[in-house]
Amino acid sequence: MKCKRCRRAEAAVDLPSHHAAFCPDCFFVFFRRQVKEGIRKLRLLAPEDRVLVCVSGGKDSLVLWDVLMEEGYETEGLYIDLGIDGYSDRSKERVLAYAASRGKTPIVVELAKEGIPIPETARCARMQECSVCGTVKRHFFNRVAAEGKFTVVATGHNLDDETARLLGNLLHWQRDHLARQHPFLPETGGGLVRKVKPLWRVSEVETAAYGFLKGIDYVTEECPLSFDATSLVYKESLSLIEEKMPGTRIVFYQGFLEPSNPLRRTAVDAAQADAVSPQGGEPAAGAGPMGEDGEEIRGTPRACASCGAPTFAETCSYCRLRERVRQRRERRAGGRG
Amino acid sequence: MKCKRCRRAEAAVDLPSHHAAFCPDCFFVFFRRQVKEGIRKLRLLAPEDRVLVCVSGGKDSLVLWDVLMEEGYETEGLYIDLGIDGYSDRSKERVLAYAASRGKTPIVVELAKEGIPIPETARCARMQECSVCGTVKRHFFNRVAAEGKFTVVATGHNLDDETARLLGNLLHWQRDHLARQHPFLPETGGGLVRKVKPLWRVSEVETAAYGFLKGIDYVTEECPLSFDATSLVYKESLSLIEEKMPGTRIVFYQGFLEPSNPLRRTAVDAAQADAVSPQGGEPAAGAGPMGEDGEEIRGTPRACASCGAPTFAETCSYCRLRERVRQRRERRAGGRG
Repeated sequence: MKCKRCRRAEAAVDLPSHHAAFCPDCFFVFFRRQVKEGIRKLRLLAPEDRVLVCVSGGKDSLVLWDVLMEEGYETEGLYIDLGIDGYSDRSKERVLAYAASRGKTPIVVELAKEGIPIPETARCARMQECSVCGTVKRHFFNRVAAEGKFTVVATGHNLDDETARLLGNLLHWQRDHLARQHPFLPETGGGLVRKVKPLWRVSEVETAAYGFLKGIDYVTEECPLSFDATSLVYKESLSLIEEKMPGTRIVFYQGFLEPSNPLRRTAVDAAQADAVSPQGGEPAAGAGPMGEDGEEIRGTPRACASCGAPTFAETCSYCRLRERVRQRRERRAGGRG
Repeated sequence: MKCKRCRRAEAAVDLPSHHAAFCPDCFFVFFRRQVKEGIRKLRLLAPEDRVLVCVSGGKDSLVLWDVLMEEGYETEGLYIDLGIDGYSDRSKERVLAYAASRGKTPIVVELAKEGIPIPETARCARMQECSVCGTVKRHFFNRVAAEGKFTVVATGHNLDDETARLLGNLLHWQRDHLARQHPFLPETGGGLVRKVKPLWRVSEVETAAYGFLKGIDYVTEECPLSFDATSLVYKESLSLIEEKMPGTRIVFYQGFLEPSNPLRRTAVDAAQADAVSPQGGEPAAGAGPMGEDGEEIRGTPRACASCGAPTFAETCSYCRLRERVRQRRERRAGGRG
């Protein structure tokens, strides 16, 4: 099959949802246009932005960084080393190699050095690893952005991620999560940087094809701590529909984002709730206005007594987690002495 | 495995969404309780109601009739012979046999005799068979109910039907359809009888098990004119989720029905729109406030000049369809003469 755009080269990527098939070069043009369109439609980024791109070593975040650089945005990569044996080393390697190939050095935060590695913290706090990871990452997104004078944080969530999350939120009518789900969460007072998801219009398959054809070497293994079976089921279920009715995912997500959709509250409310909720923007069964550690997420946040981050409690979730690890370590050291 | 209710007999039906397994007798009790609970929760029926049960010959409608009779409701069955070669005869046979076994004679409407058999009408009107069928059925539901002084019309839609339709409406954000989707559509002025779906809480598997264990002989073939691939894909997609997360369907549908759900308008508006829209309550891509034959569904309906049914046009959709068949037959007869 010939490329539907240049009509000369052989098509390498078939996209039924766009009634199209492209050769590699034309696919790059198409993909970047889709991302630019996603940025333009929701005004995610301005040309003068300093963008902190959160890179995990997976395809989505590396592809995001690649496209934003090619589009001329001023970017730096942030890699958070979660302290997970083997997996974290392999991920970091990919991030460093990719960054080096583009003449960049990413900002690296090592949670082990910060005294809050995910596996130990989850054990100490008796919480799910993914929940702990979300809280810790959000903390560093805001902190590194503030320290480095970044105007915006970008993450690599794609259309499949967003629609799976939307479906899960709808199946359980999680109104708070629905109100908070958006590719644009604006900056709010008190140290909350703007957060955007520029890949919201492109699918997982498209992102993988872009990474593969661009020769980006990314980790394909999933995080060993997070086998998020729930979100995989939603993805599979939507893939089944998408296969029979190409284009359903984007119609579903765009219709959800319509400002007239009664399920949407204002993005400002959403951003505030997102920043201080222990569950943050991730879907979690049964999460309401009260966070799982009892921190209520209504009203106006104040500064954390320990680190200054916005919180509705005396100290923020991050500092409380860190304190639990510290106390446990102290008890253990005491026990040994 | 033993029955979880009586703990004596062998379990015959396994219900993961209820964390239960039942022997046939206990399953009958369970199933009837579920239906009663669905009726009670949404006040679908009152003890003094005269219920017109629409029976197609399939499992859902015959099971519905069976349960309503066992629960002591005053019921009559309505069978509409669609005039589809072979299929209609086989369906009618099952309805008549079931009715006879309960000492009943159903009301039978033969569309061929009424001058509006579905296959010919669809050809004459150049419309999809399912769309024609919906219009014609709704007409007779209201007409037979009025003639027979029935206070309510009951149809056999189950939880799988309703959630598949809900998912389709959500994926395309069909706000009009979402507002109109409810197991209870109240009676409104001008000849619109109340319409209810008492099986909304029970799944397809549960209904099939009830029919099978009760020895009800129903048609298993699908209507040959309606291979509704879309709704089957939605059902399959939800089955995949239900299998991994039993109970998701009922949570999804109950959450949708919550009066606080911002996607719901008042049921009265919904019923009015339902009665006069050519698409009626069925999901149809791209259907808005304007019906496909241009009949606007806003405002107050008036009486059809021909049959007196409520409509926003001069004559109702049913009469216009019937007129098209008559004209075409006349032209054909003229052509031959």
